[in-house]
Amino acid sequence: MTSILILNGPNLNLLGQRQPQVYGTTSLGDIDRLCVEQAQKIGATATCFQSNQEGDIVDAIHKARGTYDGIVLNAGAYTHTSIAIMDAISSAEIPVVEVHLSNIHAREEFRHKSYVAPVAIGQICGFGAIGYQFAIQALHEFLSAKS
Amino acid sequence: MTSILILNGPNLNLLGQRQPQVYGTTSLGDIDRLCVEQAQKIGATATCFQSNQEGDIVDAIHKARGTYDGIVLNAGAYTHTSIAIMDAISSAEIPVVEVHLSNIHAREEFRHKSYVAPVAIGQICGFGAIGYQFAIQALHEFLSAKS
Amino acid sequence: MTSILILNGPNLNLLGQRQPQVYGTTSLGDIDRLCVEQAQKIGATATCFQSNQEGDIVDAIHKARGTYDGIVLNAGAYTHTSIAIMDAISSAEIPVVEVHLSNIHAREEFRHKSYVAPVAIGQICGFGAIGYQFAIQALHEFLSAKS
Amino acid sequence: MTSILILNGPNLNLLGQRQPQVYGTTSLGDIDRLCVEQAQKIGATATCFQSNQEGDIVDAIHKARGTYDGIVLNAGAYTHTSIAIMDAISSAEIPVVEVHLSNIHAREEFRHKSYVAPVAIGQICGFGAIGYQFAIQALHEFLSAKS
Amino acid sequence: MTSILILNGPNLNLLGQRQPQVYGTTSLGDIDRLCVEQAQKIGATATCFQSNQEGDIVDAIHKARGTYDGIVLNAGAYTHTSIAIMDAISSAEIPVVEVHLSNIHAREEFRHKSYVAPVAIGQICGFGAIGYQFAIQALHEFLSAKS
Amino acid sequence: MTSILILNGPNLNLLGQRQPQVYGTTSLGDIDRLCVEQAQKIGATATCFQSNQEGDIVDAIHKARGTYDGIVLNAGAYTHTSIAIMDAISSAEIPVVEVHLSNIHAREEFRHKSYVAPVAIGQICGFGAIGYQFAIQALHEFLSAKS
Amino acid sequence: MTSILILNGPNLNLLGQRQPQVYGTTSLGDIDRLCVEQAQKIGATATCFQSNQEGDIVDAIHKARGTYDGIVLNAGAYTHTSIAIMDAISSAEIPVVEVHLSNIHAREEFRHKSYVAPVAIGQICGFGAIGYQFAIQALHEFLSAKS
Amino acid sequence: MTSILILNGPNLNLLGQRQPQVYGTTSLGDIDRLCVEQAQKIGATATCFQSNQEGDIVDAIHKARGTYDGIVLNAGAYTHTSIAIMDAISSAEIPVVEVHLSNIHAREEFRHKSYVAPVAIGQICGFGAIGYQFAIQALHEFLSAKS
Amino acid sequence: MTSILILNGPNLNLLGQRQPQVYGTTSLGDIDRLCVEQAQKIGATATCFQSNQEGDIVDAIHKARGTYDGIVLNAGAYTHTSIAIMDAISSAEIPVVEVHLSNIHAREEFRHKSYVAPVAIGQICGFGAIGYQFAIQALHEFLSAKS
Amino acid sequence: MTSILILNGPNLNLLGQRQPQVYGTTSLGDIDRLCVEQAQKIGATATCFQSNQEGDIVDAIHKARGTYDGIVLNAGAYTHTSIAIMDAISSAEIPVVEVHLSNIHAREEFRHKSYVAPVAIGQICGFGAIGYQFAIQALHEFLSAKS
Amino acid sequence: MTSILILNGPNLNLLGQRQPQVYGTTSLGDIDRLCVEQAQKIGATATCFQSNQEGDIVDAIHKARGTYDGIVLNAGAYTHTSIAIMDAISSAEIPVVEVHLSNIHAREEFRHKSYVAPVAIGQICGFGAIGYQFAIQALHEFLSAKS
Amino acid sequence: MTSILILNGPNLNLLGQRQPQVYGTTSLGDIDRLCVEQAQKIGATATCFQSNQEGDIVDAIHKARGTYDGIVLNAGAYTHTSIAIMDAISSAEIPVVEVHLSNIHAREEFRHKSYVAPVAIGQICGFGAIGYQFAIQALHEFLSAKS
Repeated sequence: MTSILILNGPNLNLLGQRQPQVYGTTSLGDIDRLCVEQAQKIGATATCFQSNQEGDIVDAIHKARGTYDGIVLNAGAYTHTSIAIMDAISSAEIPVVEVHLSNIHAREEFRHKSYVAPVAIGQICGFGAIGYQFAIQALHEFLSAKS
Repeated sequence: MTSILILNGPNLNLLGQRQPQVYGTTSLGDIDRLCVEQAQKIGATATCFQSNQEGDIVDAIHKARGTYDGIVLNAGAYTHTSIAIMDAISSAEIPVVEVHLSNIHAREEFRHKSYVAPVAIGQICGFGAIGYQFAIQALHEFLSAKS
Repeated sequence: MTSILILNGPNLNLLGQRQPQVYGTTSLGDIDRLCVEQAQKIGATATCFQSNQEGDIVDAIHKARGTYDGIVLNAGAYTHTSIAIMDAISSAEIPVVEVHLSNIHAREEFRHKSYVAPVAIGQICGFGAIGYQFAIQALHEFLSAKS
Repeated sequence: MTSILILNGPNLNLLGQRQPQVYGTTSLGDIDRLCVEQAQKIGATATCFQSNQEGDIVDAIHKARGTYDGIVLNAGAYTHTSIAIMDAISSAEIPVVEVHLSNIHAREEFRHKSYVAPVAIGQICGFGAIGYQFAIQALHEFLSAKS
Repeated sequence: MTSILILNGPNLNLLGQRQPQVYGTTSLGDIDRLCVEQAQKIGATATCFQSNQEGDIVDAIHKARGTYDGIVLNAGAYTHTSIAIMDAISSAEIPVVEVHLSNIHAREEFRHKSYVAPVAIGQICGFGAIGYQFAIQALHEFLSAKS
Repeated sequence: MTSILILNGPNLNLLGQRQPQVYGTTSLGDIDRLCVEQAQKIGATATCFQSNQEGDIVDAIHKARGTYDGIVLNAGAYTHTSIAIMDAISSAEIPVVEVHLSNIHAREEFRHKSYVAPVAIGQICGFGAIGYQFAIQALHEFLSAKS
Repeated sequence: MTSILILNGPNLNLLGQRQPQVYGTTSLGDIDRLCVEQAQKIGATATCFQSNQEGDIVDAIHKARGTYDGIVLNAGAYTHTSIAIMDAISSAEIPVVEVHLSNIHAREEFRHKSYVAPVAIGQICGFGAIGYQFAIQALHEFLSAKS
Repeated sequence: MTSILILNGPNLNLLGQRQPQVYGTTSLGDIDRLCVEQAQKIGATATCFQSNQEGDIVDAIHKARGTYDGIVLNAGAYTHTSIAIMDAISSAEIPVVEVHLSNIHAREEFRHKSYVAPVAIGQICGFGAIGYQFAIQALHEFLSAKS
Repeated sequence: MTSILILNGPNLNLLGQRQPQVYGTTSLGDIDRLCVEQAQKIGATATCFQSNQEGDIVDAIHKARGTYDGIVLNAGAYTHTSIAIMDAISSAEIPVVEVHLSNIHAREEFRHKSYVAPVAIGQICGFGAIGYQFAIQALHEFLSAKS
Repeated sequence: MTSILILNGPNLNLLGQRQPQVYGTTSLGDIDRLCVEQAQKIGATATCFQSNQEGDIVDAIHKARGTYDGIVLNAGAYTHTSIAIMDAISSAEIPVVEVHLSNIHAREEFRHKSYVAPVAIGQICGFGAIGYQFAIQALHEFLSAKS
Repeated sequence: MTSILILNGPNLNLLGQRQPQVYGTTSLGDIDRLCVEQAQKIGATATCFQSNQEGDIVDAIHKARGTYDGIVLNAGAYTHTSIAIMDAISSAEIPVVEVHLSNIHAREEFRHKSYVAPVAIGQICGFGAIGYQFAIQALHEFLSAKS
Repeated sequence: MTSILILNGPNLNLLGQRQPQVYGTTSLGDIDRLCVEQAQKIGATATCFQSNQEGDIVDAIHKARGTYDGIVLNAGAYTHTSIAIMDAISSAEIPVVEVHLSNIHAREEFRHKSYVAPVAIGQICGFGAIGYQFAIQALHEFLSAKS
């Protein structure tokens, strides 16, 4: 049975309470529930973790190795600045799907760059919480195709 | 009933015959069938069109207005160079979801830039044909939320 | 009798129906009529052509040579990306006045660059349809001064 | 009755005596006369002022407020470097049409940038003295449309 | 009664012991005392917190919301690199005044950029500990003007 | 007794009449009064001067030497472009505190650069007229510490 | 028997009539004849096609696959801007020799960049029509070495 | 007796398990043993610490002051992004030798930049675990020369 | 008899009183005397003018035309920013020799750029007051060679 | 009878022994023989010279003047860095055809720039030794056309 | 028995006589002796060569092939500019360790770039003469691991 | 008695025979004679040396130390690319005056940069052979002021 880590980075804990015109009104708890449900639908399990610490994201990726089959990663602002997270993904050699709530390519220039992208299967952005559901499906397809 | 235009740009007609290590073995016909099926599943219709001409893509976007409820657009190489397509989307004021077969952010630097992104709802890339299915769902969700 | 080609590029066919806060409510048909009238006022004739294809603009410039005395050109989005149109003007060696409905220098950075400008007599932008009238007059003055 | 300030910047006082291959043989006095005549034709008045001092241009824009209905501005070389003039136009909240004798976009790279453009209605360049006449007409149209 | 969080970032705990030619001899404890006194003078309270962890600064900003009326923030080196802190401020929607002990605009090029600035009320730098006192006053004024 | 020159650059004479959403409703006269009062409070005198001419600002800095103990300088738009003012401060070897009404680091990219900063004690921006009061205090502290 | 497509891009149809100081007096018909003759000399056939449309060049490359053994490509101005043509060559997996009449590396900076080069065997530029003859020979050698 | 801190940054805990073609098969435990042995050989002691948190590296540098005579620092990915670590080294005023397992100057462009280098004695990269031994020797030599 | 204008820009009036480590102890009066003497030696006359106003430098260049045979110009800080002075020299069509007291190419990057250089005969920098004497000689030689 | 200098730069002496996947197995001796033969075929003579010294290439170009009718130049790595060789060609005023064994425009970015190109007739790259034969023919054609 | 070439580039012959604050007081002779001794310690031989000519360094690398097992290379200033030396190392396919006396990454920006690094095993800089000893050891380890 | 080395770089040996519109008709022999005469006039001796080899220039600078009191250096094209010559001047610690025949700041962008300038007393360019005479005088003044 496929097990997936839903890994969320800085400020995503404030979700639903912050800038609704950019991120919508869904809370992180709502997203977690959607992910667990979506995973169940496709015969998988989803475990959710969030941290505002760059190093915690790195740790979580390391620990995911051997525990989970893949990661759905929204690294938040660290997406644009963290080579450490990029290296953690390369090191852990675990499949990652990158997701963002907002369309990062339609926002400030510095949000267009992703250090996660070159080591991820693919990227989904701009669809809010539903993007996580697509990411779970995409990861599942990827793992099925590999096995 | 929601009607969706699946609009593909340059070189996508060669799909399945070209660089399989980058784009896989699925042909454009396969993608069209997957799109039509996916649309049916969610109670919508999908119409497919492809052209290697930048101006044809512009024309198709213009004509989509009033005929379709939204566009799933893979503008291929024109994604990175065409301000004309960007302006066509702004002008037609029709919802667009951007899709790419490969993970453009993991390829050459010049493929990271998208002129479609700032005028699209969101972007999906790196998942091959399945990305079109996500795009159809995402567009459907967007249209449902609006109405 | 001076004959002038009014040559319009991508998306200008949607004029009057698109982004009125940027381009106003005048349609391309209205502009054509204004151009024909303005030409008549100064004893000239104006012929109007529009295409969304970069190559059609190139073809039209080639054919203008020997048929028209000059061109009023609004190359739309191709203004900022088309070296082919730039070369067509140099090759055809026909006088061109560049016109834009909106003030391109007050919009996004990528609209400040014009590949038409270095091979045009001058540029008029920001005045809507009236800019075409100025362009016809300017072309007429240029042709009179030369002859 | 519409009153317009014709405001000319550095080196324009030498007009007609300098680089005729770039700027032609018309003197600043000739331009002033053309402007006054053009203004009369459309039922307006034109007042002319020139200075080589950046601060004088700023002062003139400040004083124009409440005295004139709009400004036709050729800021000369200050066009490309003066944030102070840009701010003066924003502050004075008076309509400005930007004009240049030569086609600045066909000259050195550093002349392509205009700090006036983002706070102006539009730009006319490359047509010599006749550009001022277009500018007066354009300003008149703008003021008529607003009132 | 206004309550203010004094939030200090990396390396500020070493203050008074490090590079006196750049940062002076005042310790972080001295600054805390000055801030508490200054707050008292204007009828407010100041609470002080310092961390070397980017994620702790993000957490502190999140928690400040609902607890404090505003933040005086010296994000130290994270000022120049942390989009996460920038997003935390936007998310928490709490007023922030940015302060730096040294004149960051007179130091290395990479210290001129601030990710805090675009989401702060204003910036004070170069005055050592007294800058915190100005920041408390400025925040107090801002809060008074709003209420 | 400490004497301070309050030196204001281009467009600041229009204060209170211009873009209130950026600069507020306080006039330059109001600022002058606030400065004089603030100076009195700390046992100093403040003299106010404004000019729209870059060269006048240079002259004023030269003349300040030997007459005033320090300068509170808001060089307005010249902040971002004037090497001449930078050199004047270095030459006159008189302490300068840089002040701006708006938060220049939260505005257009070209306003982030300051040629005054590298030769100033520190910078205060974003707090409107109160920033001048901080600047006077900061200058006073600096002069006290030196003597 | 080796069959070669001679593929010419925008404005090359005007050859011999345009800018003789840059491109010489040879017409496209002359070049076609030279190519056919050169092909015959080495026991090959040459077929010639020209279009001003970027999409037509893409189509021609697609169709060349299976029909021709290789392409001699002068993509004209599209050389410098067309990722679509670059991708067409990669997709069609057909050998291409790049040719230019003028020495593009001795002209404007924007003509130094070639999107064709990274997917071509080699580049010949600056020798006028004779460059096509070299290109045919080079392609022939390449195909001989491979078989 | 010289005491040295061996300080390792993000992802180095995975060593030996990750990308062997880049980093080899030696584990962090192996490196620690090699360092302790090398230190003993030259009459010094080596203490080893690793963390994936940027702030922990900063803290460790602060605490090293007064406890250790110098630091051998492999800051991993934070090398390229952390001004906070750079400032920590300046603040702690403790000698640092920079080491990297791989040749960072032969990898991606963004790994060529080091914020540690300007505040370190020197840099050793590309020799795997043996680089740490050189670093210990180099630090020892530096400390001997100073004392 | 050759007549030469010695034209000095911003801050040069402070000479001898400012930054002696950069500019030496010679005053502007001393330089004027040296210039007059040097001119006499070679049978010419030298007239000296200094202003801190960019526009005054422009005016002086305009007036020099017909009055002087050439200009020795030290435009100070305006050298690096003034397109207006560059245009004034082109317009006045009077020979100019550029001189700087300090070696501008050995100072900050922004002092390496000169807008005067492209329209001057040559540049002399780094030799203090003696540079003016060389400039007078060089101008004299240039004028002799022309006549 | 036309005489041609075949001039090869750094590392070309190692040819055939080095990186065969980039440069093939042909030695410099083989190329020399091919050049001599090709020259004979068209009634010319070819003399070959190679050096690893930039200055020797400069000297050889100087000496070629008056001795040879033209040069086939493969400046190797100096192509991308040597302004001295560029100036030597301009100075000697002798026709030069630029040749490279590999397709330099398909390799690292820094190999795309050529200082030889702006002063050469044309460039041939990517065809190995046969490129020299084309170069000899091209030079011969150029010399025939001129005489 | 391992034989190593110690290859030193421009200005290293002046060592010990030049800028002692940057390079120390050790002469090149001292370094040669240290290298010979260090080589003996590990059962190898070291031969030393220095030249100020870029081409001589290229020649020495070519000749090293087949004569030496590896090179310790301090290319001095050519490190930052010589693609010819980079290509020589690739061509000769001989292992190279890069060494610098000073910490090049702590000096001017243009010294951070190394053309040697991408074709070297690793880099050692900032430790003076002792760096050569590390380099010999590192080369020895590399050769042992390979054999 | 002051002794001066006149050191000329690449292509200067062709002087008088090359591009007269840029460099004039004076030969290097003429310049040498002018330098010897000028040196005699001021009671000094001038020795002349020219080479096209970068390394020879470096050697000459090294040898100048202890033999000559200063160098007049025209490094030709190496001015813009040679860090080795820059380092040679720093190492030799001998005064250098930089001279160029043409006005390098009025030519191509890549000729504006000088690696000699930051380690030279000053720069003279654009005056042809007479520039060497000024350079000798300037060097003499510098040496007199020092002694």
